Amino acid sequence: MRVSIIMGSISDREIADKIVAKLMEFGIEYDAKVISAHRALNQLQNYVKNAEDESQVFISIAGKAAHLGGVIAALTTRPVIGVPVKSSTLDGLDALLSTVQMPSGVPVATVAINGGENAAILAAEILAISDDNLKEKLKKFRADMSKKIANTDYVYEG
Amino acid sequence: MRVSIIMGSISDREIADKIVAKLMEFGIEYDAKVISAHRALNQLQNYVKNAEDESQVFISIAGKAAHLGGVIAALTTRPVIGVPVKSSTLDGLDALLSTVQMPSGVPVATVAINGGENAAILAAEILAISDDNLKEKLKKFRADMSKKIANTDYVYEG
Amino acid sequence: MRVSIIMGSISDREIADKIVAKLMEFGIEYDAKVISAHRALNQLQNYVKNAEDESQVFISIAGKAAHLGGVIAALTTRPVIGVPVKSSTLDGLDALLSTVQMPSGVPVATVAINGGENAAILAAEILAISDDNLKEKLKKFRADMSKKIANTDYVYEG
Amino acid sequence: MRVSIIMGSISDREIADKIVAKLMEFGIEYDAKVISAHRALNQLQNYVKNAEDESQVFISIAGKAAHLGGVIAALTTRPVIGVPVKSSTLDGLDALLSTVQMPSGVPVATVAINGGENAAILAAEILAISDDNLKEKLKKFRADMSKKIANTDYVYEG
Amino acid sequence: MRVSIIMGSISDREIADKIVAKLMEFGIEYDAKVISAHRALNQLQNYVKNAEDESQVFISIAGKAAHLGGVIAALTTRPVIGVPVKSSTLDGLDALLSTVQMPSGVPVATVAINGGENAAILAAEILAISDDNLKEKLKKFRADMSKKIANTDYVYEG
Amino acid sequence: MRVSIIMGSISDREIADKIVAKLMEFGIEYDAKVISAHRALNQLQNYVKNAEDESQVFISIAGKAAHLGGVIAALTTRPVIGVPVKSSTLDGLDALLSTVQMPSGVPVATVAINGGENAAILAAEILAISDDNLKEKLKKFRADMSKKIANTDYVYEG
Amino acid sequence: MRVSIIMGSISDREIADKIVAKLMEFGIEYDAKVISAHRALNQLQNYVKNAEDESQVFISIAGKAAHLGGVIAALTTRPVIGVPVKSSTLDGLDALLSTVQMPSGVPVATVAINGGENAAILAAEILAISDDNLKEKLKKFRADMSKKIANTDYVYEG
Amino acid sequence: MRVSIIMGSISDREIADKIVAKLMEFGIEYDAKVISAHRALNQLQNYVKNAEDESQVFISIAGKAAHLGGVIAALTTRPVIGVPVKSSTLDGLDALLSTVQMPSGVPVATVAINGGENAAILAAEILAISDDNLKEKLKKFRADMSKKIANTDYVYEG
Repeated sequence: MRVSIIMGSISDREIADKIVAKLMEFGIEYDAKVISAHRALNQLQNYVKNAEDESQVFISIAGKAAHLGGVIAALTTRPVIGVPVKSSTLDGLDALLSTVQMPSGVPVATVAINGGENAAILAAEILAISDDNLKEKLKKFRADMSKKIANTDYVYEG
Repeated sequence: MRVSIIMGSISDREIADKIVAKLMEFGIEYDAKVISAHRALNQLQNYVKNAEDESQVFISIAGKAAHLGGVIAALTTRPVIGVPVKSSTLDGLDALLSTVQMPSGVPVATVAINGGENAAILAAEILAISDDNLKEKLKKFRADMSKKIANTDYVYEG
Repeated sequence: MRVSIIMGSISDREIADKIVAKLMEFGIEYDAKVISAHRALNQLQNYVKNAEDESQVFISIAGKAAHLGGVIAALTTRPVIGVPVKSSTLDGLDALLSTVQMPSGVPVATVAINGGENAAILAAEILAISDDNLKEKLKKFRADMSKKIANTDYVYEG
Repeated sequence: MRVSIIMGSISDREIADKIVAKLMEFGIEYDAKVISAHRALNQLQNYVKNAEDESQVFISIAGKAAHLGGVIAALTTRPVIGVPVKSSTLDGLDALLSTVQMPSGVPVATVAINGGENAAILAAEILAISDDNLKEKLKKFRADMSKKIANTDYVYEG
Repeated sequence: MRVSIIMGSISDREIADKIVAKLMEFGIEYDAKVISAHRALNQLQNYVKNAEDESQVFISIAGKAAHLGGVIAALTTRPVIGVPVKSSTLDGLDALLSTVQMPSGVPVATVAINGGENAAILAAEILAISDDNLKEKLKKFRADMSKKIANTDYVYEG
Repeated sequence: MRVSIIMGSISDREIADKIVAKLMEFGIEYDAKVISAHRALNQLQNYVKNAEDESQVFISIAGKAAHLGGVIAALTTRPVIGVPVKSSTLDGLDALLSTVQMPSGVPVATVAINGGENAAILAAEILAISDDNLKEKLKKFRADMSKKIANTDYVYEG
Repeated sequence: MRVSIIMGSISDREIADKIVAKLMEFGIEYDAKVISAHRALNQLQNYVKNAEDESQVFISIAGKAAHLGGVIAALTTRPVIGVPVKSSTLDGLDALLSTVQMPSGVPVATVAINGGENAAILAAEILAISDDNLKEKLKKFRADMSKKIANTDYVYEG
Repeated sequence: MRVSIIMGSISDREIADKIVAKLMEFGIEYDAKVISAHRALNQLQNYVKNAEDESQVFISIAGKAAHLGGVIAALTTRPVIGVPVKSSTLDGLDALLSTVQMPSGVPVATVAINGGENAAILAAEILAISDDNLKEKLKKFRADMSKKIANTDYVYEG
């Protein structure tokens, strides 16, 4: 059980860190690499071809005209989760549309702009289909989250 | 191996039809229902609770302030795929943002606006992780798609 | 006469503070809680069911794919006022569309992005229909506001 | 118990018809007028001043730079519900932002673009606070809606 | 020859300062006031009615659901120039659409978001139609601007 | 007293027709030409230079990257009114932003997308500053408009 | 002198026809193919590698999450012109942002949404740098265009 | 072999610096000037007419209603590359649409918002068509870029 994380640029590392932290929390193995779809297409192809035997899920992290998720999806039939990244213009809308509006035949499972944590949770949900241990961890994670919120007190500070 | 499809409104049936046709092509079982998150929250809860034992993946189809995917995701730890639907105003942007911009903890795997076919393919990719037969079907589907495009001739019609 | 305020996250507390301050100014009782629609749906249901006897109006505060207002509206026939919250991407447009574009049958009375003060005033306007004392307070509030503006001097600072 | 409906233009009459039909269903009295905020400000002021004794709620219907809701809200402390209308350009976004983004002090309770039916239901929810008979009607309306959806069958048409 | 400047809020004063500085540069008289369309509609009506004899042009400055320009335009047949103001959400798009998308019959001459200087220049262009002295000043202003740009050196700083 | 109307393309003629009809109603002379800023810049320069003695106001009509208004404004110190035109993509937003977001020094008085009639009325308001006869016509036009609306009956058609 | 045209889908053929017609008008050779970046990445790589010796310029035509231009640009150092295509949702904004917002290092020369004719003219302008005959044709094309516009009469049809 | 760079304002110099640095890296000559299309149209015409003999490519840098690229394109048949600049409102969307949405006949090769480096690379790709030395430099640049990315290590920092 392994997830392959690919960043379009080393500047996306903060989001990768969130994904990795969450995967580790769930006990899921991972590898993570910086490989731009545009600047290193050959490496990307090699990496995906090699990774797809051991990794059941891919996560792409990319901003601007974010083609990374779509190109990975073109190279494998494994599920690809896309995290659009907000860059210095257009507030992330460019990355969101470039990631989610994929043509018929090659889907990218898109999460919120900068939504690294949710990408990891979605990967866990996918892997938990055939892993009852992970399924229990997910249920516990949800219950804890719910409990934590129930214990959050709001006190008015006028 | 089963996918549960939930529509927010019967007017979404055209997109449901595309999902069902694709799932049938891959030999994946399904059930499909119209249950609005806002107009029938109790039924939705019952349905999801009952379905999550047999269905490994949920697909939501909803337009406007499309809360359906998010609410299903709140009710199960199964992966939830969201299809935003274009309605009569704002060209689908409202449904896209309402589906994809989920807060941390509860992801919805969002595909393109009106992207029913891709929702089904993504479901197949997820289920194929533990089903080698389905994996082969997906590879064949991709190869066929690729071949069909290679055989598409463009002839100029001035 | 009571208003129930529900935040999707403790990070919305600054807006809640504005609502509470305004309600106190009008002498309206309130209770306020952090209950995410996605992360604590059961608690939300219990809370709304219990609150709707004593609270005549609900106010939801939520950002991103802001489903909170819509889900509360699905749980009660009391009027629900929704405050969309600006988060780190898309400048509040996602929360606005997720809150206001509700399907037929389940309205959410939406105010401006981050418009906490106006949510409180709208609640007061609604409650004043059957409370002449509150009605007078609202008229005074408007007159004072109008007067304050009339006394605002603009002096050019070149 | 009366609701005053004001259209910015006679071209908004289709939406007014939906509001009126719904109000009649709930047994709520209404009056309805075409009075543009820009083209007939004096008439608007007279109308609102006269109506606010008998009408507990105002509903505005307007497109483009939709100032009608805001101007009515400036003229009364009664709750004002605003329905943004989609016109021939910008898909209703102009009317939505002009209606909902009101400055502090003067809220407009905004519903979805072209959301006439929801404006009527919101008005009913507001009036039901002090009318138990109307409250029962609303609960029945919700239950019927929920039942109707539960009875909606989806049959695949391939 | 006089221009009346009306701000929706004292927070718009920085833009008013730019307008005043430019009008003074052209030797155009002005008066300037803070009068919100929503919070002080009566004062606004009185002010416009009194000002329109001596002021040939009105300039409105307002953000969010910026109704000020439209309401002034409804009160006078003098040309009204609208300056949309960027506030804390939506980057000024709400104010721009609320100002420019006026319905037929009541135009507002809209300039760029936060475009105070251009509002003053447009007012000068309008007044110069019947004032040859001002016309010369405008021509000189343009020639100076053009010369200043011609003298701007770009030196590469690697 | 004359207004010069310039279209970017003959496809804008429908909007020009509305402007001309309104100017004729007010007894204002006009000339109208098709001269693209991009495809015929020299002709545009000659035309504007010749027209600016007799025409007090220019109106530009252009779609897409609508540079026409800005270029005319660069060629004259007469007030330039810009009408953004909706074309087959982006719903007029491109033309609106290209027309209104002018840099400091060279304003274009922008009206609503496709707002031909308002461009003519704004021109009339500008010319009426030094023409009492036209001023009376404008007041009558407004009063008639107001009266017509007061006589518009809404009758519910269920 | 040759231009390679690549469509993402056969549904883009109408735009390809406009490009081809214009290239033929300028006497520029071309080849044209349908090769989706996502559905046939290998064919795309082979095609570009083979074409780049004889073709000096590439033109991509693609809609939705339009990655085609970016992927071609990743495969060659020839200039790549991208034509974003409007599809059934979001009015072409998704294709525009996916094509133009390329990360540093790999540019795509983007033209207007559906701007096939301009893609061909831009290709001609690029090729004309080293072809004086083509340069003359371009100058004549511009002069003719300018003349045609100068001869376009506008006659008012009230 | 020369590239002419034109800024709409001296505030665009940071982007010009990036272009110049990149052109120098490729050994391409350049000249660079600040000439606003709106504030100095005559100088712009003279400059372009003089430059087009020695410069094969033009690059425009402009924000807001960015007409500069379009006007240069109207003055020459040389390829014009447009760099839209993000200014203080609307996040660069205004400049992008004003630059890219050019009408048929006069294309501007648009790169990403603030995409100075890519403008230089695109210019190099265009010039490399008839310059084998430059072509080699471009291939080396791409290979280096690819290598640098292959050497970028990601190490998780929890």
